Amino acid sequence: MSSTPVELRDVRAAALRIQHFLHTTPVLTSHSVDVLAGRQLFFKAEHLQKTGSFKARGACNAVFLEKERNPDSAGVVTHSSGNHAQAVAYAAMCLGLPCTVVVPKGTPKVKCDAICSYGAELVFCNPTPVSRVKTCASVAEETGRTIIHSSDNYDVIAGQGTIALELLNEVPDLDAIVVPTSGGGMLAGVSVTTQKIQPKCQVYAVEPVGKNLQRCLEAKQRLWSDPPTFLNTVADSMRLQAVGHLAFPIICEYTNTRVFTVTDDQMIEGMKLTFERMKQVIEAASGAGVYAAVKLIGEVQPKARKVGVILCGGNVDLDKLPWVMPITSY
Amino acid sequence: MSSTPVELRDVRAAALRIQHFLHTTPVLTSHSVDVLAGRQLFFKAEHLQKTGSFKARGACNAVFLEKERNPDSAGVVTHSSGNHAQAVAYAAMCLGLPCTVVVPKGTPKVKCDAICSYGAELVFCNPTPVSRVKTCASVAEETGRTIIHSSDNYDVIAGQGTIALELLNEVPDLDAIVVPTSGGGMLAGVSVTTQKIQPKCQVYAVEPVGKNLQRCLEAKQRLWSDPPTFLNTVADSMRLQAVGHLAFPIICEYTNTRVFTVTDDQMIEGMKLTFERMKQVIEAASGAGVYAAVKLIGEVQPKARKVGVILCGGNVDLDKLPWVMPITSY
Repeated sequence: MSSTPVELRDVRAAALRIQHFLHTTPVLTSHSVDVLAGRQLFFKAEHLQKTGSFKARGACNAVFLEKERNPDSAGVVTHSSGNHAQAVAYAAMCLGLPCTVVVPKGTPKVKCDAICSYGAELVFCNPTPVSRVKTCASVAEETGRTIIHSSDNYDVIAGQGTIALELLNEVPDLDAIVVPTSGGGMLAGVSVTTQKIQPKCQVYAVEPVGKNLQRCLEAKQRLWSDPPTFLNTVADSMRLQAVGHLAFPIICEYTNTRVFTVTDDQMIEGMKLTFERMKQVIEAASGAGVYAAVKLIGEVQPKARKVGVILCGGNVDLDKLPWVMPITSY
Repeated sequence: MSSTPVELRDVRAAALRIQHFLHTTPVLTSHSVDVLAGRQLFFKAEHLQKTGSFKARGACNAVFLEKERNPDSAGVVTHSSGNHAQAVAYAAMCLGLPCTVVVPKGTPKVKCDAICSYGAELVFCNPTPVSRVKTCASVAEETGRTIIHSSDNYDVIAGQGTIALELLNEVPDLDAIVVPTSGGGMLAGVSVTTQKIQPKCQVYAVEPVGKNLQRCLEAKQRLWSDPPTFLNTVADSMRLQAVGHLAFPIICEYTNTRVFTVTDDQMIEGMKLTFERMKQVIEAASGAGVYAAVKLIGEVQPKARKVGVILCGGNVDLDKLPWVMPITSY
């Protein structure tokens, strides 16, 4: 009998652990988008989650567990310039734990301010994946703080699984769920939870061009380069090329091997459609999920009547919306 | 004993009449905006209403009543390039009634397409208030269709009153409600309904610069020029300077005489704050209400703890968001 490192009981425990600090986000619907899609779509509104993204779920579960396991914890540290950084800072603030966030030099001030607004301390590193990991490790060593990885952490994965718990609680008979994927924590958590609750519901990854997740899933091997690289995509929060070591086997077991690959233009189309028809501010990664649900899922599962779409985050630079091209002066 | 042309029973009847064709919109809250405002704000999300604005309420009530009173109705006609046009077209479509919308020449194609998507027929006129009224009247005469005015119509006013019915049902102990105001239909409907249900709750108008509503309310006189003029404001849906003849006496009786005047920059600030913190796409008129609730109400009613804000619409040109200034090339 095989056992998974993240079980449904871990996800249920996470839901109880984080419930008083996070929103049960609404599930939105839109008649006019359903008409375009030719099926019913159910949008899990994680852009309305605390800190503006689903990352608050995994971060709260991991940080709260750190404190449960280690009541004298010296705090937490992570590396991220994006949604996970705010999420860990928020989670630490909830418990009054010290928190350091390693951010690459050149991170926009607005992002640094958001992280600091939750009381975290910033440490700057060079803007490479390797420098981020090394700087984070040395902060952890010097301060005794525990590293909270953004996706490759079973507690984070269990926390992200609570999205599926809530979504399937509200719409139990979904035929499919599409999940924008970067490090794979949300995909792993949602896949394992869905499989245990509603095994007929297929979970699909949505990826930017260049990630090549489908080839890895088919080979059941992490074929990505080491050290990892970043993708060139409009979706800030989907730049990691590789899915993590802990998330990958879970994904191989529970996620459909068919992956939806979405170009920048397609993500932007999904994003703008959501602004226009649903009046919701979402980031490009969420737009990738919308595009896949509206335009692509029919190729793979034409009979899917009810499809869940995770609007994973809404942290977007409003001064630089990707469809607004400022006229360059020469 | 004085009697008002729009009574609470008319608003309750409107609510029953329109309920199956419209949304009971959610009431949104935001911890971080509450902190900025120094009080609790309750946002009535009319930007999520059918057709993207509250106008669908009044239009449905008026058009459905036209059909009740006149089962052989030849249809309806209105003049508007904005939210009311879509609203009347939608209402007529619900009943399969013919509908003509008079729009000024030069109306953006996207707006014309939205109106036509509900099956209405377009007639173009010159872009002046006088030409709109005259063209509408002659279409009515030629076709026998009934004119549905955007605000100066008791059935429309009763329909807009249902916003307050729902808002006070959800948050009965509001201290104040702020209402972005153009022709005054929503302000009249919300004011009379609020006064009858929760007389302690103050209703305030929010206006663009140049409307001078407060002076008129204090004088209890419509001091505006005739024929009416348009204001130069970033808020498309608040361009009418004058409040209508039917709405004005209701407003004089039930609305607080203190009016909040908001500049374009302030509306845009309220709009961007709502995009950023609440992830909601709203139009500039809604932003005016947000600004008044966050920044201005304290001057007038400092002890107001709970304030309702009507996010009246979300129909905004996403390619021309007012805070995104394209760099002009010379």
